[in-house]
Amino acid sequence: MPFLDVCFSPELIHLYELKGRVVVVVDILRATSSMVTGLAHGLERIVPVSSLEDCKLYSQQGYLTAAERDGKMASDFDLGNSPFSYMSELVKGRTLAMTTTNGTRAIRLSAAADKVVVGAFLNLSSVAAYLLEQQKNVLVVCAGWKGKFNLEDTLFAGALAHKLQDSFEPENDATLAAWHLYETAKNDLEGFLSKASHVQRLRNLDIFKDITFCLQPDVYDIVPVMEGDYLVPYTPEVIKS
Amino acid sequence: MPFLDVCFSPELIHLYELKGRVVVVVDILRATSSMVTGLAHGLERIVPVSSLEDCKLYSQQGYLTAAERDGKMASDFDLGNSPFSYMSELVKGRTLAMTTTNGTRAIRLSAAADKVVVGAFLNLSSVAAYLLEQQKNVLVVCAGWKGKFNLEDTLFAGALAHKLQDSFEPENDATLAAWHLYETAKNDLEGFLSKASHVQRLRNLDIFKDITFCLQPDVYDIVPVMEGDYLVPYTPEVIKS
Repeated sequence: MPFLDVCFSPELIHLYELKGRVVVVVDILRATSSMVTGLAHGLERIVPVSSLEDCKLYSQQGYLTAAERDGKMASDFDLGNSPFSYMSELVKGRTLAMTTTNGTRAIRLSAAADKVVVGAFLNLSSVAAYLLEQQKNVLVVCAGWKGKFNLEDTLFAGALAHKLQDSFEPENDATLAAWHLYETAKNDLEGFLSKASHVQRLRNLDIFKDITFCLQPDVYDIVPVMEGDYLVPYTPEVIKS
Repeated sequence: MPFLDVCFSPELIHLYELKGRVVVVVDILRATSSMVTGLAHGLERIVPVSSLEDCKLYSQQGYLTAAERDGKMASDFDLGNSPFSYMSELVKGRTLAMTTTNGTRAIRLSAAADKVVVGAFLNLSSVAAYLLEQQKNVLVVCAGWKGKFNLEDTLFAGALAHKLQDSFEPENDATLAAWHLYETAKNDLEGFLSKASHVQRLRNLDIFKDITFCLQPDVYDIVPVMEGDYLVPYTPEVIKS
């Protein structure tokens, strides 16, 4: 049976073997939730970039651009980090260059994996179906907050571990912790997260409806999969049928 | 109100401010449990050292020596990492040089803190009393396993957060996670930990009774406190009286 492991921070990723594995990058509030939303609403592809400067360069090539720093939209970009801004007609058929505080860094650091995909509650069952198709060992990489552990990404890892518990062996204590925390939180994710640091940070920015939206399971069918430099949408066979 | 924060791995310690804080280093299985046991049984002081080679040099100065690597006692040292080996008459009045896979490294990396102390379930209430005396912000540094998150150190952090919940504010999601995991596990710590990686590792080494012993709360009154290069035993006033 393949195993499922969880890395709580991009700062710990050097401790994990990536070769031979599928990495699921998660940044629930809000980078990976927004990526899933955009690709489900007709965005053709996303290039994750590291710096605001690089992101601006893509704008000159006709790309849409999105940038977030410290939970806020950076100025002079087309989109911020709210999933609602990714539902617009504007995104259809376009390519997006995107940089965020934590999420795009986690994707870049995972590049040595066999496959890198993007997970969120919004596409939870599709991510699980994708991993069942692949049948490889899995590492969930939580983007965290500036290198530190966060609860919302951990709950996603726990939800995925629950969903795959008959087909993937939990590896290491981080997976067990995520499993138990999700077990405690599952009937009221938003209530459980009400004391979480980033939720409080976002509330100060008046982004309640983003939080509620990002915690909904299975709104979209697609899994963003890295192909070369781009995240492109993929729908697992079992979800299609 | 001062706050209590938790760092899940020595690899993340650079993300935390240490100045102005009390750091509690925890390595339940078994470094910090053994340190508490030894100092409670008459050991005068402990010098935590990094390498096996450095540890051997202390032997030539008449120190007792203890060394553990990968859960096993390293050869040519007086003591290993089982708390039972620290209950001997041998330790009375002696100084011990000690090196372990994870615990002594965590102590060394915490040196910039105002105070560095050693915690275990065995001295849980005394550590809490010490922190109430100090009234400074607290960082619990979990030694983890080779840089990765582990459950038993996290449960200690959660137990401490429970004990101090009226006097210290939880800071960051790691503290909330530890709090919830302890809440889930508290009625049967050993059962909860039965799937934990290091517990399975130690069971393979046939060390059941060490695990049972290390999970007992409040067996000893003393808190090991770093003074210069040495950990020395301290008994908080409220515990003395």
